[in-house]
Amino acid sequence: MPAYTPPLRDMQFVMHEVLEVTEEYKALPAHAEVDAETINAVLEEGGKFAAEVTFPLNMSGDEEGCTLDQGTHAVKTPKGFKEAYAKYVEGGWAALSCDPRYGGQGLPFVVNQCFYEMLNSANQAWTMYPGLSHGAYEALSAHGTEEQKKTYLPKLVSGEWTGTMCLTEPHCGTDLGLLRTKAEPQPDGSYRLTGNKIFISAGEHDMAENIIHLVLARLPDAPKGSKGISLFVVPKFNVNADGSLGSRNGIYCAGLEHKMGIRANATAQIVLENASGTLVGEANKGLAAMFVMMNAARLGVGNQSLGLTEVAFQNALAYAKDRIQMRSLSGVKAKDKEADPIIVHPDVRKMLMTAKAYAEGGRALAIYCTLLLDKEHHHPDEKVRKEAGELVALLTPIVKAFLTDNGHIATNACMQVFGGHGFIKEWGMEQFVRDNRINMIYEGTNTVQSLDLLGRKVLGNNGATLKKFGKLVARLVEEEGVSEKMSEFITPIAVLGEQLTKFTTELGFRGFQNPDEVGAAAVDYLRVAGHFVFGYMFALQARVALREIAAGNTDPFYQAKLQTARFYFAKLFPETATLMRTARAGAAPLMNTDAALA
Amino acid sequence: MPAYTPPLRDMQFVMHEVLEVTEEYKALPAHAEVDAETINAVLEEGGKFAAEVTFPLNMSGDEEGCTLDQGTHAVKTPKGFKEAYAKYVEGGWAALSCDPRYGGQGLPFVVNQCFYEMLNSANQAWTMYPGLSHGAYEALSAHGTEEQKKTYLPKLVSGEWTGTMCLTEPHCGTDLGLLRTKAEPQPDGSYRLTGNKIFISAGEHDMAENIIHLVLARLPDAPKGSKGISLFVVPKFNVNADGSLGSRNGIYCAGLEHKMGIRANATAQIVLENASGTLVGEANKGLAAMFVMMNAARLGVGNQSLGLTEVAFQNALAYAKDRIQMRSLSGVKAKDKEADPIIVHPDVRKMLMTAKAYAEGGRALAIYCTLLLDKEHHHPDEKVRKEAGELVALLTPIVKAFLTDNGHIATNACMQVFGGHGFIKEWGMEQFVRDNRINMIYEGTNTVQSLDLLGRKVLGNNGATLKKFGKLVARLVEEEGVSEKMSEFITPIAVLGEQLTKFTTELGFRGFQNPDEVGAAAVDYLRVAGHFVFGYMFALQARVALREIAAGNTDPFYQAKLQTARFYFAKLFPETATLMRTARAGAAPLMNTDAALA
Repeated sequence: MPAYTPPLRDMQFVMHEVLEVTEEYKALPAHAEVDAETINAVLEEGGKFAAEVTFPLNMSGDEEGCTLDQGTHAVKTPKGFKEAYAKYVEGGWAALSCDPRYGGQGLPFVVNQCFYEMLNSANQAWTMYPGLSHGAYEALSAHGTEEQKKTYLPKLVSGEWTGTMCLTEPHCGTDLGLLRTKAEPQPDGSYRLTGNKIFISAGEHDMAENIIHLVLARLPDAPKGSKGISLFVVPKFNVNADGSLGSRNGIYCAGLEHKMGIRANATAQIVLENASGTLVGEANKGLAAMFVMMNAARLGVGNQSLGLTEVAFQNALAYAKDRIQMRSLSGVKAKDKEADPIIVHPDVRKMLMTAKAYAEGGRALAIYCTLLLDKEHHHPDEKVRKEAGELVALLTPIVKAFLTDNGHIATNACMQVFGGHGFIKEWGMEQFVRDNRINMIYEGTNTVQSLDLLGRKVLGNNGATLKKFGKLVARLVEEEGVSEKMSEFITPIAVLGEQLTKFTTELGFRGFQNPDEVGAAAVDYLRVAGHFVFGYMFALQARVALREIAAGNTDPFYQAKLQTARFYFAKLFPETATLMRTARAGAAPLMNTDAALA
Repeated sequence: MPAYTPPLRDMQFVMHEVLEVTEEYKALPAHAEVDAETINAVLEEGGKFAAEVTFPLNMSGDEEGCTLDQGTHAVKTPKGFKEAYAKYVEGGWAALSCDPRYGGQGLPFVVNQCFYEMLNSANQAWTMYPGLSHGAYEALSAHGTEEQKKTYLPKLVSGEWTGTMCLTEPHCGTDLGLLRTKAEPQPDGSYRLTGNKIFISAGEHDMAENIIHLVLARLPDAPKGSKGISLFVVPKFNVNADGSLGSRNGIYCAGLEHKMGIRANATAQIVLENASGTLVGEANKGLAAMFVMMNAARLGVGNQSLGLTEVAFQNALAYAKDRIQMRSLSGVKAKDKEADPIIVHPDVRKMLMTAKAYAEGGRALAIYCTLLLDKEHHHPDEKVRKEAGELVALLTPIVKAFLTDNGHIATNACMQVFGGHGFIKEWGMEQFVRDNRINMIYEGTNTVQSLDLLGRKVLGNNGATLKKFGKLVARLVEEEGVSEKMSEFITPIAVLGEQLTKFTTELGFRGFQNPDEVGAAAVDYLRVAGHFVFGYMFALQARVALREIAAGNTDPFYQAKLQTARFYFAKLFPETATLMRTARAGAAPLMNTDAALA
């Protein structure tokens, strides 16, 4: 059975020493009073919840899965899931970063980010039940009428009700323009929806008394394609005027998918039969409204892989210290034992450090992005809000795709550390690999993320936002370029920054001549950009560590940060050399393949 | 449900057009008469067996798994497995490349290699039941007494009995020197064995009437460590003098592992309680005898991933042509449809071509190695036999590790082509990923393979064998370097060959000073060597294709070969740039991590 210890110190390091979030919050009226002690105390409790309540249900939930009663359309979640959710509601965890107007605690998003990292480490499948509610909360907060907000938000904030996002249909996932679910207007201003949705995470379950579905559908007179899609809120149980639950609505679970991973989450086929709903936001502007949910969800998916990377690392590290096998090539290390612990072997260390570096780079980036979200929502200066919003939009596809691909690499590496035991279910490592695998696919495949980054976020505004991020890096390079001790962390990002600028311009020209050049380069480009951002994050962390060490701090924690940064720049960051080469090889070797792919 | 079409034409291309195996066989008395028609006819029938008999059991076998009756120690394999095995025996498939003295058909190993590629595509878990028998057959052929050969080989050749390799124990996998199973000599010259083995593939089942276990154990007076290990043959049922089955031997299945993949194969915990066995080969020389089995098994594991790569590719290609989603960035392609088939998107093509290139490079290398095995076993000239043996020893860890890592990349890419549907069991793609995952681990983890390659096979003889392979490449470079059309396939391998030579010398020096430098570089080194070998294979294939096209052959098959080779050199081969950089970064960033891995 795997173990899990919340990485509180690592989170505190990023929040308080690297990014100094509470200093930043002083400029935000909503969070001006929040202090480090409060944040740390909340996360300590949150970590206990994750480690003690949901983590023990991770393997059993995977083993048991969810079951559907075809007669009643009821879904039973695995043993203990319902009780854990009751504790979550009771503890007020759903309300952490929600608006106090609806009963929220009004804490910064950063706190929720760290809490959810721990929940994801503990049990990704369980965490998706409350996690999906956030998307519904965000969409209704941003686009709902006062009536809708009053009806749904307090119950979503308390956690008494959960939410879903109903986008995908059997014939369309990425291409939502093809969707067919219909919404017929009713005389009372409501709508009746009919259609089929698939892959609806947490789509039906027994953990909450109501489920609030956010559903994309077409009005009768809607234009074709993605400009004819509207967003509706469709509750499982209709809500009476006094807020009590009314009749069962025509939205049912018709089937559950059998999946490679996240088996404890109910991935539902949802049938809408004349289901009653109300319009959210403007007619035919549903996709834009849905993007409010999707962007939050994309950051959330990156956070899922961050959580899995961390828990996989912790367990692989423990195993590598415990398992003895062969002697170190450079001489016996554990003389009192029959063999040395496998952590003496260089490649075992490489696998462990890969996971550790991807966890720490990912954590820094995820918290950085969430701090930007806090600014975007709460900074009094509109210009700061706008800039923060642009930066987070740029970084969102990187968080989604880079962290989930890294999670794939890291969970597989950690499983590999266990040798044959990694393949056996009882050790728990293979579940991390299976659970992580969906993160590279849902909420927009990682290919879609890369097109969003290169096509829309970078080339779409002639690299303006990327340049803004580049300026932050350039400032650090300027500040620290003269420091001899920082040069090993600064030089690589300075060099890559210049290469990336040229490379982006080059891709812009090529893409102008042939759009397939953008599609051919995008996945490689995203990983280059990911390393650029991670490089910046590691340089920021190294700066703090060097400062502490120079000041005489002997806590080995800071040496560890330097070692991880050095490993990262020596062994992971150089991937950019190949990525730029393969991206530059262009579209021709991909597109001139008609005979090969006949 | 996935589909599978045996890639007969691709196999024929490698065998007859690229490697001209029957020309080579003319020099081998045992195979001088074998012609292409015979080989092709056997493989056509073999392909039918795979596609029609075992492939339909692949998903159901995964779903059902094996069950153990704790009372009788009997293992029930999934529905249909037993019947399929009966057909295999009936068809004489077990005897394909076995020695006619024991009832074998005496066909070249190359035929068996191609047959097993198809079996692995069809059903890796099923194929392991007969597949493991080959190891037992090889070990007994090479090291058994006449008595042992007479007792066991005819039944292994007919397939009436199957075999296993019992190496691993709970506390030792890689480090067999630690093993504890004991063998007590008996007055009649036999031995009584007692101990616990784990991870024994096909260790117990209901498909054959007897199971012949090859077991590593220690004699009472054996030296410590790996020099005190002996090999024994321990049948499930003792064999009477007349060849009939006698009493049940004290070797039982005590448990089955619950695994991520190959769930239809019985991975058994085997208990030996005073089990009767006989010594195979010399006392305390068991590990050397076992290596006969292990080397064959390692090539076999590479072949498993080759099979999975091929079947994953075929299904992803079919899906990418069928599934419509979004429009091509460079303009509408399927005007009559609501959207374009996803094969128009550059990154979808990249995922498909990655799998195709890894399948075709892997197939060429695997057949090349098996041709070397045929020469090693049957060439009349000892010098040729020796050289062939050395080359295959060099290439074995590459086949095992490079093909299985590539299989991981390829099966994951093919699953990704399916988007969310790839994660759902009914499409069958995620099973290919799960089944492939063990191939990177068993028969020596891929890290162990890399140490075998760099430490033993390359640096162990000062690069002599590598130089021999390098000479083959140099000959091709010399022959084709002047051809303008070949230069795109020749230049990369010529350049990499020079880099690899320097790089190897450099690692030799470093390793001499600090052996951890070898351990730190080995995994990267193996992938560089893998690309060097694949590059050579693709150049050989491109040469044939160019020759045919120049001769006016308009079969698009040859254009396809050129397109795949171009893709390979443009998009996969450049990985070597990063690998050499990270390997050169050396051991320090891995070993100076005590604080980080505290």
